[in-house]
Amino acid sequence: MTTMAATSKGGPCLNLITEGLGNQERKINVGVGGGAHSVGIHAWKGFTLRKREVRGGWLAVKASSSSSYQSVDQIQRRVNGIKVGKRGGVVDVPIHAFKLGRFVEDRFVYRQTFIIRSYEIGPDKTATMETLMNLLQETALNHVMSSGLAGDGFGATQEMSLRKLIWVVTRIHIQVDKYSSWGDVVEIDTWVDALGKNGMRRDWIIRDYSTQQIITRATSTWVTMNRETRKLSKIPQQVKEEVKPFYLDRKATVAATNDNHQISKLSEETAESIRSGLAPRWSDMDANQHVNNVKYIGWIMESVPLNVLEEYDLRSMTLEYRRECRQSHLLESLTKMKASVAEDSDPENTSTFGRELESTHLLRMQEDKAEIVRARAEWQTK
Amino acid sequence: MTTMAATSKGGPCLNLITEGLGNQERKINVGVGGGAHSVGIHAWKGFTLRKREVRGGWLAVKASSSSSYQSVDQIQRRVNGIKVGKRGGVVDVPIHAFKLGRFVEDRFVYRQTFIIRSYEIGPDKTATMETLMNLLQETALNHVMSSGLAGDGFGATQEMSLRKLIWVVTRIHIQVDKYSSWGDVVEIDTWVDALGKNGMRRDWIIRDYSTQQIITRATSTWVTMNRETRKLSKIPQQVKEEVKPFYLDRKATVAATNDNHQISKLSEETAESIRSGLAPRWSDMDANQHVNNVKYIGWIMESVPLNVLEEYDLRSMTLEYRRECRQSHLLESLTKMKASVAEDSDPENTSTFGRELESTHLLRMQEDKAEIVRARAEWQTK
Repeated sequence: MTTMAATSKGGPCLNLITEGLGNQERKINVGVGGGAHSVGIHAWKGFTLRKREVRGGWLAVKASSSSSYQSVDQIQRRVNGIKVGKRGGVVDVPIHAFKLGRFVEDRFVYRQTFIIRSYEIGPDKTATMETLMNLLQETALNHVMSSGLAGDGFGATQEMSLRKLIWVVTRIHIQVDKYSSWGDVVEIDTWVDALGKNGMRRDWIIRDYSTQQIITRATSTWVTMNRETRKLSKIPQQVKEEVKPFYLDRKATVAATNDNHQISKLSEETAESIRSGLAPRWSDMDANQHVNNVKYIGWIMESVPLNVLEEYDLRSMTLEYRRECRQSHLLESLTKMKASVAEDSDPENTSTFGRELESTHLLRMQEDKAEIVRARAEWQTK
Repeated sequence: MTTMAATSKGGPCLNLITEGLGNQERKINVGVGGGAHSVGIHAWKGFTLRKREVRGGWLAVKASSSSSYQSVDQIQRRVNGIKVGKRGGVVDVPIHAFKLGRFVEDRFVYRQTFIIRSYEIGPDKTATMETLMNLLQETALNHVMSSGLAGDGFGATQEMSLRKLIWVVTRIHIQVDKYSSWGDVVEIDTWVDALGKNGMRRDWIIRDYSTQQIITRATSTWVTMNRETRKLSKIPQQVKEEVKPFYLDRKATVAATNDNHQISKLSEETAESIRSGLAPRWSDMDANQHVNNVKYIGWIMESVPLNVLEEYDLRSMTLEYRRECRQSHLLESLTKMKASVAEDSDPENTSTFGRELESTHLLRMQEDKAEIVRARAEWQTK
């Protein structure tokens, strides 16, 4: 990568925590389990959209053996709820029902169904980790949009919008038991709960629709940030009142034994593999010209040895977002792999690439080595 | 980009046309309109999957004012057709109806409906060109899968599978009148027709579901290739007999005046902008560890000036695929922009960045400069 190439697009990455928050980065703590997590920032939802118009639009399904749909001129604008009417044997199914999903369990849980598309599968012909993360994000956004709480931000509530606050995710942990294939239908449930004084937890479970088996579990930590100053904020009482009716004390994930400690910071000395010169593309930017947080996973994978990518399945992943980036300088991806001690593993087997692996990752700026994401993952042979 | 970084993942790109086809690349011509196109290869569909199991699965929609769905244990396996039954006020809508779409117009046209997701929009908050191309690909694959013709390949027919043939796309042309936003519903129609003696044309139109307005038109050229030798093949008579009943003599696109000539080949001398060091990521690989052809668009955009990306909408794009790539060396993206002569343009306005622009692109291997994709695009101020 020539210097020209490196700088032809990217302005300096705005390390807004460093510049805007100073010590605050370490001051705001969010209680999680027995420990406390230092809160970094990544503006997953740190971008605003014009208030989204919820479009009605109905699919009409003929109540006969015909295989054709007929579009109808009836336009309905209901955010929640499904209306199924009949007109001359035509059953209307609101198209937004399939878009926005629906509330279940007394509105504590939001559920959406997705079909895995051909372009969402990876080299091993199953949905990629990026695809799963995208679907979780979509379900979370539709949850907020459908709750009646939505303000003018991408996932912000009305009381948050009044205060120019947005949600930012600081940590995601995902456990995958089974990856779906092209054409599989998955059903995603999501809900939120309080997390300490200044955080919100959002959990998800993904079921295989045909078997109803839970195939993925995920949890995440959210805090609020002022969208102009980019400073972290305590959650105002008015916002707490808004979201409290939705809180559900239920955990999607079982705390893994290896998930109690912070992710250690890799360096040139401790990393086994470093991939430099990773350049965000224009197409990696989201609606606010931030790097979409799901894209980080792709860069993390760039320093994972090829034989691991080919021979192992990613079983769990924890991402700690520490800085938000807009158009970025070059990035570096660092990885350290180690064999994990599985309960039924052969004690004689001490090779690095045994049956199960654990990995530690760091994504950082190439120039000043500022941290962007720390991550940890578990791998299992296919 | 250091040499270490450049070679840590990528083996040499397999320029299979060069190695396997020799002069054949220029020998097989496909008649298109008044001209003839030299056929390059890119294995868009050049990868095989195990025969896909079509899963039934039904969503049950309560025929009441309740906002909740109930899943039912009834599993149906029908590839085409929609069955709407009633059991105690519950209307079943087959989930695969929304997955596979359905045939319309006496089975000559295949139609599928999609909802634009939050992660499919770009910096300007509308669906990206990559998203449109992904949706076209998904509709085309489901068309073949639903036709009853599907063999063991990703889009190959039974007679093709017997002969180890796969479809490869050599050219795509897309015209976009309007980009959809998050939550918009689009309806895609696709059909095929003969193209000269050795080609197949596939066309698409995309409608805005709520207005039924046609917002995008696209056409593409397909030839058959032996999946083992990677040599182009004439379409065998048996395959022609298979697909002939589906042929529909209808054109989605109006041949643009500027689309009659071949796309000129850019060089260091003629290009205005060159972006080097573009490295395919592991996540850019598809199910056969080829670079997914939609990813090429992202690399092409990397050499487009930032102000064009920010201030202009991509109105049309033509891609000519000339080589297939597996895991690749570094790529280079070359772009030349010029003001186009719009009918109502100000004759005084001769600035490079006027109201409308045309661009020419080349994606090539950095090392040996071998061509991968030539492209042409039209841009209009937002």
